[in-house]
Amino acid sequence: MEERVIHAIQDDYADEFAWCYGCGSLNEHGHHFRTGWDGDQTVTYYRPKKEHMAVPGFVYGGLIASLIDCHSTGSASLALHRKNGNEPGDGTEPPRFVTASLKVDYLKPTPQNTTLKAVGNVTEIHPKRWRVFTELYADQTLCAKGDVTVVVMPETFMENRNKEELSN
Amino acid sequence: MEERVIHAIQDDYADEFAWCYGCGSLNEHGHHFRTGWDGDQTVTYYRPKKEHMAVPGFVYGGLIASLIDCHSTGSASLALHRKNGNEPGDGTEPPRFVTASLKVDYLKPTPQNTTLKAVGNVTEIHPKRWRVFTELYADQTLCAKGDVTVVVMPETFMENRNKEELSN
Repeated sequence: MEERVIHAIQDDYADEFAWCYGCGSLNEHGHHFRTGWDGDQTVTYYRPKKEHMAVPGFVYGGLIASLIDCHSTGSASLALHRKNGNEPGDGTEPPRFVTASLKVDYLKPTPQNTTLKAVGNVTEIHPKRWRVFTELYADQTLCAKGDVTVVVMPETFMENRNKEELSN
Repeated sequence: MEERVIHAIQDDYADEFAWCYGCGSLNEHGHHFRTGWDGDQTVTYYRPKKEHMAVPGFVYGGLIASLIDCHSTGSASLALHRKNGNEPGDGTEPPRFVTASLKVDYLKPTPQNTTLKAVGNVTEIHPKRWRVFTELYADQTLCAKGDVTVVVMPETFMENRNKEELSN
């Protein structure tokens, strides 16, 4: 099993949007989740740190929610980017999404000391509104499911980017 | 506005269950969320760190999901503890819950540089299954809502505790 994404969508986010605690490549304290294509599905791999526990031996649910959150925004970004004729690594800046609604069902305790694999299926429900269904595996065991609605990043975030630039 | 919980339920969790990355008092890398009563509602305050951003100026959704997650398990623990005739700080070990299903609706971008306040309302839907509705405020602005179903920690976690003890 391939356990690393080669071309991740997060690698192509503009620098101003690469600070996310979950998936921003420039956030030195963050998780650095990376999401790419695996055929028509999306994948994110992550090996939780020792401190990311709920109780000893099992992964913290908030970490799983975080993984599914960034996996979902990244998956929608991949899908809209592909719809626009682009692929990660081709030098074009991908669209950015934010999360409108996050649902995670925890099916089984998720064991530590293994790499987690999130597998996503993306559906467009509106040009600016996408839905991502995720299955989270630890080894071959399905431990959690995600159902996340994301929207193209609204102008309020863009305005903030402009303010940030103006203040520099 | 009171911005600190005096008697938090997490302070009374048994040491074996105080390692949660979100709310465990013994996890030195964790968030240390603390949840207590405010009348018949539950509250958790948390000031995100600078790195807990989505984009500069706004809080990361995964951090908000984590806060709502531990706030919900803590809220149900408070409620069942009270039903059993106990209050935080009275020297009795409270029941522990785990999350079965987590739903977060992100209503507005959540600004950084302020203390977040999660306010919970707890409903018993079965002696071992509780539901917690949360409103998350930044200053006076409602930024997110949580709808979380939690269950009394199952035997699988307890068995792990026993194994941990046996291995010491």
